[in-house]
Amino acid sequence: MAKTSDKALWIWYPGDFEIWLGNIFNNRRTERGAMFPPFWKQDSHWPCVEFLRRVELDRPETIHIWAEGRFSLKIDDKLQFGEPASYTLPAGKHSVSIKVWNQATPPALFVQSESLPTDARWTVTYEDKIWIDENGVAHGSGIYLRPGSWDFDSPEARPSLFRLPCEPRKAVSCENVGKGGRSILVDFGKETFGYLVLRGVKGRGRVDVFYGESRPEAMDREYCETLDRFEVGEGDFTAPDSKAFRYVMVDLPEGMGVEEISMLYEYLPQDGSRSGSFECSDPEVNEIWKVGAYTMDLTTREFMMDGIKRDRWTWSGDAIQSYLMNYYLRFDSAAVKRTIRQLRGKGPVTSHVNTILDYTFYWFNSIYDYYLYTGDIEFIHEMYPKMEELMEYVLGRLDANSFATGCSDDWVFVDWVDFPMHKRGSLCFEQLLFIKSLETMDICRKLAGKEGGPDYGGLARKVLSRVRKTFWSPEAHAFMHALEPELNPQVTKFPNMFAILYGYVGKKRRQEILRHVMHNPAVPEINTPYMRFYELEALCRCGLQDEVMETIRSYWGGMLKEGATSFWEKYNPEMHGDEHLTMYGRPYGKSLCHAWGASPIYLLGRYSLGVEPLSPGYRTWQVKPSRGGLEWIKGDVPTPFGKIHVEMDGSHVSVTAPEGIGEGVLIAGGRKVPVKPGETTSIRT
Amino acid sequence: MAKTSDKALWIWYPGDFEIWLGNIFNNRRTERGAMFPPFWKQDSHWPCVEFLRRVELDRPETIHIWAEGRFSLKIDDKLQFGEPASYTLPAGKHSVSIKVWNQATPPALFVQSESLPTDARWTVTYEDKIWIDENGVAHGSGIYLRPGSWDFDSPEARPSLFRLPCEPRKAVSCENVGKGGRSILVDFGKETFGYLVLRGVKGRGRVDVFYGESRPEAMDREYCETLDRFEVGEGDFTAPDSKAFRYVMVDLPEGMGVEEISMLYEYLPQDGSRSGSFECSDPEVNEIWKVGAYTMDLTTREFMMDGIKRDRWTWSGDAIQSYLMNYYLRFDSAAVKRTIRQLRGKGPVTSHVNTILDYTFYWFNSIYDYYLYTGDIEFIHEMYPKMEELMEYVLGRLDANSFATGCSDDWVFVDWVDFPMHKRGSLCFEQLLFIKSLETMDICRKLAGKEGGPDYGGLARKVLSRVRKTFWSPEAHAFMHALEPELNPQVTKFPNMFAILYGYVGKKRRQEILRHVMHNPAVPEINTPYMRFYELEALCRCGLQDEVMETIRSYWGGMLKEGATSFWEKYNPEMHGDEHLTMYGRPYGKSLCHAWGASPIYLLGRYSLGVEPLSPGYRTWQVKPSRGGLEWIKGDVPTPFGKIHVEMDGSHVSVTAPEGIGEGVLIAGGRKVPVKPGETTSIRT
Repeated sequence: MAKTSDKALWIWYPGDFEIWLGNIFNNRRTERGAMFPPFWKQDSHWPCVEFLRRVELDRPETIHIWAEGRFSLKIDDKLQFGEPASYTLPAGKHSVSIKVWNQATPPALFVQSESLPTDARWTVTYEDKIWIDENGVAHGSGIYLRPGSWDFDSPEARPSLFRLPCEPRKAVSCENVGKGGRSILVDFGKETFGYLVLRGVKGRGRVDVFYGESRPEAMDREYCETLDRFEVGEGDFTAPDSKAFRYVMVDLPEGMGVEEISMLYEYLPQDGSRSGSFECSDPEVNEIWKVGAYTMDLTTREFMMDGIKRDRWTWSGDAIQSYLMNYYLRFDSAAVKRTIRQLRGKGPVTSHVNTILDYTFYWFNSIYDYYLYTGDIEFIHEMYPKMEELMEYVLGRLDANSFATGCSDDWVFVDWVDFPMHKRGSLCFEQLLFIKSLETMDICRKLAGKEGGPDYGGLARKVLSRVRKTFWSPEAHAFMHALEPELNPQVTKFPNMFAILYGYVGKKRRQEILRHVMHNPAVPEINTPYMRFYELEALCRCGLQDEVMETIRSYWGGMLKEGATSFWEKYNPEMHGDEHLTMYGRPYGKSLCHAWGASPIYLLGRYSLGVEPLSPGYRTWQVKPSRGGLEWIKGDVPTPFGKIHVEMDGSHVSVTAPEGIGEGVLIAGGRKVPVKPGETTSIRT
Repeated sequence: MAKTSDKALWIWYPGDFEIWLGNIFNNRRTERGAMFPPFWKQDSHWPCVEFLRRVELDRPETIHIWAEGRFSLKIDDKLQFGEPASYTLPAGKHSVSIKVWNQATPPALFVQSESLPTDARWTVTYEDKIWIDENGVAHGSGIYLRPGSWDFDSPEARPSLFRLPCEPRKAVSCENVGKGGRSILVDFGKETFGYLVLRGVKGRGRVDVFYGESRPEAMDREYCETLDRFEVGEGDFTAPDSKAFRYVMVDLPEGMGVEEISMLYEYLPQDGSRSGSFECSDPEVNEIWKVGAYTMDLTTREFMMDGIKRDRWTWSGDAIQSYLMNYYLRFDSAAVKRTIRQLRGKGPVTSHVNTILDYTFYWFNSIYDYYLYTGDIEFIHEMYPKMEELMEYVLGRLDANSFATGCSDDWVFVDWVDFPMHKRGSLCFEQLLFIKSLETMDICRKLAGKEGGPDYGGLARKVLSRVRKTFWSPEAHAFMHALEPELNPQVTKFPNMFAILYGYVGKKRRQEILRHVMHNPAVPEINTPYMRFYELEALCRCGLQDEVMETIRSYWGGMLKEGATSFWEKYNPEMHGDEHLTMYGRPYGKSLCHAWGASPIYLLGRYSLGVEPLSPGYRTWQVKPSRGGLEWIKGDVPTPFGKIHVEMDGSHVSVTAPEGIGEGVLIAGGRKVPVKPGETTSIRT
């Protein structure tokens, strides 16, 4: 949504810029030099939209118009000649309508004026028509909506020209690894992302470039995941496409030379002064936090992506974790919103989000998370119709039990596992996500002030009750994994930890699950940081912070010991050496910089510093810190009002709240004391 | 659908090129120098599509690849490096998949090769996913479809570069109409279309151009419908945008001059040798036919448009008449198909076609017409899913009587009339079009080999029976016009003539309608050639060719006497002089070249020459000629097999059938004789 301010912003049909830019973003993926587009439907922006503003002016006013696309200007329903750069409105009531047409990039508008700059007071439609039935209910979505906008606030900042900024970075080492100096390996010291630069090229010819997140990968011409071939001439050369790498091997043909190999680091700017932080008495945990933060910064870009080397797509299940980490790191709400919009795309819905059943449910649930942390009700208004459309698709595919079961062409993902996991039939895990989504729908409908439609709350209760009856095994003391159509004897951590997380079990069952599932060595271990996120969060919910801190140290610390400079897609501590680089049956298939690898950022902020909004946008909140066995911890958690600062050692806890935030409460040492905005509250423990 | 041939064609997702080009086409409309886009939803092409071909090769073969967009090549599921210009396939079985991404113009592919040139054997998907339910029924439309194509048959003939050809035309007169030779009026002798050319410009400055279909319009700077302002320098200048005109007035600033004002005539090429013709003993009727043919040629372009001056949009109600005339003039099936595709656009359906209730129904009915004349079953297969989607929208908006009634935001058009016509409630006219659409759905479902969905045939019978009970007035001997919710006493020709045309009345009621409605001077006259089309066709169905020929002479002949060089949007014989130029309350609002003005092309071919397909694609057909009071008539009617030639005078009739056509029958002089392909059959009458 555009902001209401005196400053004009470029505006467009809501979601359309994200759809267009998202296509550019997702289609940048390559695999060994071949473009690798997503395997799901990609949508387009509306090619012709009308922007409208009604206004009453005390005195004449001149408006200045810029558009991306051809446009027509209608003042008080009268079309004006040509595509005027400006127009002077006399005093009085006016309607200003500007229709912009652009098939190549989203139609966008920028109007500079005192009283009607392009902002949230404008509306926009793509001229779908609506139908109001005899009960006054609107069918179709063809209303004038508030326009979309980012922070493009000058005529020159045309949305279609948007690029992330870059800055030059030098390699930390450079060695000849081939005969006659024609194979050069450079090391940038840590995982990075951007455009390779060859400075001072001599000669002319084809240059082969092999990228590696690891040294072996960059040196393996046959199996490295990404590579480039360039025709390069004398002078300086910058690669046209961005890549992820730590190492780069450059093969030069005979007679060619290069003075220096460096790069342009591409990044999403962040405001460090309002960012989260974490520090404690254990340097290893501090390093884990820093590498997690760097992993998040590398994967938070135009959109939040999974991994920077290979996939480079937006994935809903990965993204919901990025959002949660982001609330404790950068609090970049704009990045969250644009990723949520991009993932949803446009109607008609023809598949689950990313084609994955579970990823549809995470998409719903991420919207309430966003509202809880930011209190941004406008976004609920914007997304609710899109939530309804997706839920209609989900409800149209339920089985006879009202269970959400994978249909043909649905991908039932859950997790990458090293053991045979049943995915046919109805998975308990999917039902829990589905119930949570129904609850989210119920809440968001009320927040959006909508009525009508299915009884989401009632259905959630019905499915939950059926799940409890169907999947809970008193013998196994666990939710069983799958119904296909008989109950399969497999037990996995997945449904059991989500039952704890979502509060679908009481204290007694929680203890049964802890003992018979989470702490049961016969139940297969989780080997991705992805599901570790939920596993550890479930343990935190059970008050097991010491155990969680131990796991953070051994699991993420284990990656650091293997030389990680960003966190990985998957880590199996039992693997050794270059085995860690393999995945998907490929020697360097694994992503060594994967957003879901950074979950300590969330766990340390939410459960160690213990900061949590209790009502949307930190109107009420609590701090319930836990050292998890460390001597001391301290850090900051960003909120819409600034940072909450927390310090804790063996004898005291203190919390400093920013001005303007709602009233908080500090829970520590068996006490519960209020925390006032702008003040520091301390407790001796 | 792409043709199967050795020759490669550029291919794309079916319908997408029409959608993209249709946006360019429809957005070319201007009103007094302002762009004037349609007031309904415009769609986009899918930005990323996958083309797939499976093939078995006896020996190795090299394929050459061109794409509009970035692409990836996958051979046997393995991605290939970069965007290769060629690839050599070894002998054996292969799958060749090429994914093309292009947000600006439709992703398109051209593959030159002996065994797998891009043609109808390729398939294409936009990667929507489908869901096969437990009964094996596919939900969603995400199957690989046959690609779309036109006749772009070389690597250079990139679809996005498509433009209609132009040729230079000189003005027939040129006069100075302003002081000092600075206002120049040129006359091109007749209605025309294209780009204004200023040759030998001297000086530099702003040139104002006023276009007119009439002399008064071009000379009226304040009220002419279209105008341009150009900054022109020394030399030759061609206007960037096309316009319709006969007269052009050019205002030059002081100090500027121009040697010659001419134009580039833009046109859709047609093959005259396979076109229809008509000649008779009356030179006036011959002139009517010629001016009608020219009107059709001017309005048949990238798509079939309504009028070339003002609207310049595709309109379904106008188009269905253009299609029917086309079957008797150019038999340009490609132009019909691309207009039908463009009008339908993409899902989701958010309004009626052109927002008009009646225009949705004409869209359905035009598809069966097309099949009847061409026998092109492929097109039924292509369109049926889109027909179903639109009919679902229609059925979702029926009232309690199952009548199709205009909802809020629907435009109920019927005709431009000079009398107060009721449009509220349920119109009998709309119900008849609706019933015919349901019948069309029923037929096309069978043709497409589909099952399931609503019982269209049963619903058609139910609604027809209810219409007969509700609207037929034994007192008025007529179908009454409107139910709102009581029967309105108004009688119009509209429902009554459609009841005759669609065969919804028996002989007795037909006679009642003829006497009490069609020949009843108390019933308001029709003043548009648009509804005259159906009125005269209904009279022909009643055997009243003499009366129809008389009307053609007086009504269309009347326009010729007023100086028409193409036929008009509306003609009221009671108006005089410049009054004929007015419409919509504007002095030059009327279109003087309007496709629906050309209906004699259809009437003379179908009811004078009397040629009519009886089964699809002229598998069986008849010639039932009628001189309508003329001494002799002769002419040609194009078919998929070539032309049927008909001659008739007072004593004999002869028909020559082309080779390859099905068996025909000649009905004349009370006899009915077979006409064999490639032979001439004559009857003495």
